[in-house]
Amino acid sequence: MRKLAITALAATGVAFGGAAMAQDQDYTIGVSIPAATHGWTGGVVFHAEQAAQTLEEGYPGLNVIVQTSPDAPSQASAIEDLAAQGIDALVVLPFNSDELTGPVGALAGRNPDLFVTVVDRGLSDPSIQDLYVAGDNPGFGRVAAEYFVERLEDGAQVVVLRGIPTVIDDERNESFRAALDGSGIEIVDSQYANWNRDDAFRVMQDFLSKHDRIDAVWASDDDMALGVIEAIRQAEREDIQFVVGGAGMKQMVQRVMEGDPMIPVDVSYPPGMIATAMAVTAGSFYSQAPVRGTYVLDAELITQENAERFYFEDSPF
Amino acid sequence: MRKLAITALAATGVAFGGAAMAQDQDYTIGVSIPAATHGWTGGVVFHAEQAAQTLEEGYPGLNVIVQTSPDAPSQASAIEDLAAQGIDALVVLPFNSDELTGPVGALAGRNPDLFVTVVDRGLSDPSIQDLYVAGDNPGFGRVAAEYFVERLEDGAQVVVLRGIPTVIDDERNESFRAALDGSGIEIVDSQYANWNRDDAFRVMQDFLSKHDRIDAVWASDDDMALGVIEAIRQAEREDIQFVVGGAGMKQMVQRVMEGDPMIPVDVSYPPGMIATAMAVTAGSFYSQAPVRGTYVLDAELITQENAERFYFEDSPF
Repeated sequence: MRKLAITALAATGVAFGGAAMAQDQDYTIGVSIPAATHGWTGGVVFHAEQAAQTLEEGYPGLNVIVQTSPDAPSQASAIEDLAAQGIDALVVLPFNSDELTGPVGALAGRNPDLFVTVVDRGLSDPSIQDLYVAGDNPGFGRVAAEYFVERLEDGAQVVVLRGIPTVIDDERNESFRAALDGSGIEIVDSQYANWNRDDAFRVMQDFLSKHDRIDAVWASDDDMALGVIEAIRQAEREDIQFVVGGAGMKQMVQRVMEGDPMIPVDVSYPPGMIATAMAVTAGSFYSQAPVRGTYVLDAELITQENAERFYFEDSPF
Repeated sequence: MRKLAITALAATGVAFGGAAMAQDQDYTIGVSIPAATHGWTGGVVFHAEQAAQTLEEGYPGLNVIVQTSPDAPSQASAIEDLAAQGIDALVVLPFNSDELTGPVGALAGRNPDLFVTVVDRGLSDPSIQDLYVAGDNPGFGRVAAEYFVERLEDGAQVVVLRGIPTVIDDERNESFRAALDGSGIEIVDSQYANWNRDDAFRVMQDFLSKHDRIDAVWASDDDMALGVIEAIRQAEREDIQFVVGGAGMKQMVQRVMEGDPMIPVDVSYPPGMIATAMAVTAGSFYSQAPVRGTYVLDAELITQENAERFYFEDSPF
């Protein structure tokens, strides 16, 4: 039961603090994130709320307000609401760049001392932010491909499910292909499935009907991986050795931890990045160590050995 | 006296922690840095020692050992000494990539669980590290050039002192030139002065004898800026409006703070990055928020308004 012990011990939130005497100073951090509309944002909400609690415990003077919003216009309003409460820092994971750059930029323009932290999806104008915390999208594809190269022989045939046509999906896909170069592994088919489980189920059914031999699947997302696995199960195909998803969904990390041969690994794109961003933002007030900059968190290969580090028992994701 | 109050209050070290219950676990972090052979590394030693103290206060179970070394072979030995003491993490600011990649890589190979943080100068094999914390060299040139564009008119003539021919110096210089593009500001001369005060004095004497009109100087380093200023003073030239150095040396930050017209701004390349690196490394043990990745700290324009944030009264640098 080492897993449970670690999970209970380790806090999700983090505190980035200075000497005790400075920790009583009063600061307010406003955190604006999407509501838990799908799995990954559910993880973001969980980690943000945990971090808010831990940071407030760590710094008696600190107040952290977490606001979730169901869509971009609501998020723009929520940011104004936070501003009206007199925040010293804004940590924002924007719904999208187009609709949030204006509101965040205007707020920062009116409040030159406001510390602005942007998480995951960048704003169109990066000069607005003091700190940017993000996942590594090229690394996300490269790490998956490196595992394929390690596991498969020259001549292996794989299929790829893509997300929604976006810069992020392009970066992941290009680096996946680049890292397969020269391995002799062939991508025999590739289709968009919109980061959606049902679409992935249908795409995988199509792949299975078209290709007699498929050695492995890069589902490139844990939700899509679930759809893929269901299609394989229903087709009773025995040729597929494994499926690699991505993000670090709880039930997928659990399968990795349990040694499921179909899900031997996962690739992280951690929703906990919101907690890292909040902690470093607090550090901007309670320490004079430099924190302004760009922090890109690794896409890590989640294996049976390290999976417990990526498993959060109380998280919905 | 606001400056002194802030300096006294704010800790240099930072703590990146989890819930109180996790903070008693025993971990040892070894920190290997160059000895204070010149100004900037003196700042690194100061910030590392401060951070060691603050982190140990913040985490009762944490032990931080800071070792300074006078040269690369000594640093390789020091890293072995740290390993012999049973460290859980190594934070290393390498003298150079060539001589330290082997020793750090070998240590990491023998100890797969060792958390390796590399600071400033990268290793030749980045796969060795879990975390990389660095300054922004292209930004260092760009931020300086943006100030030149803001202050100077079309047709202004500037001279540039370069450091030692290195990738770092090239990155800084190329981005400085790129950011001047289209401004009408002309670089009338550029010479290497080896990040050395005396060399910079001689190079500036040469510039002054060759050019009747110099509007501003990009010394690109605070040590070189001191040599430049002395050459200007001795030549009694009145045409030079300002000199921009770089790094954030204490006496230069003080001049900025006091409104010295010759040193209106500086550009940060903070030695405190060692403290940031140590804090985030500690966070890898005392929190499950993701920390592995690449953290590039901004090159910031130091102005009279924000200078106190870059001034450390007790630091030698």
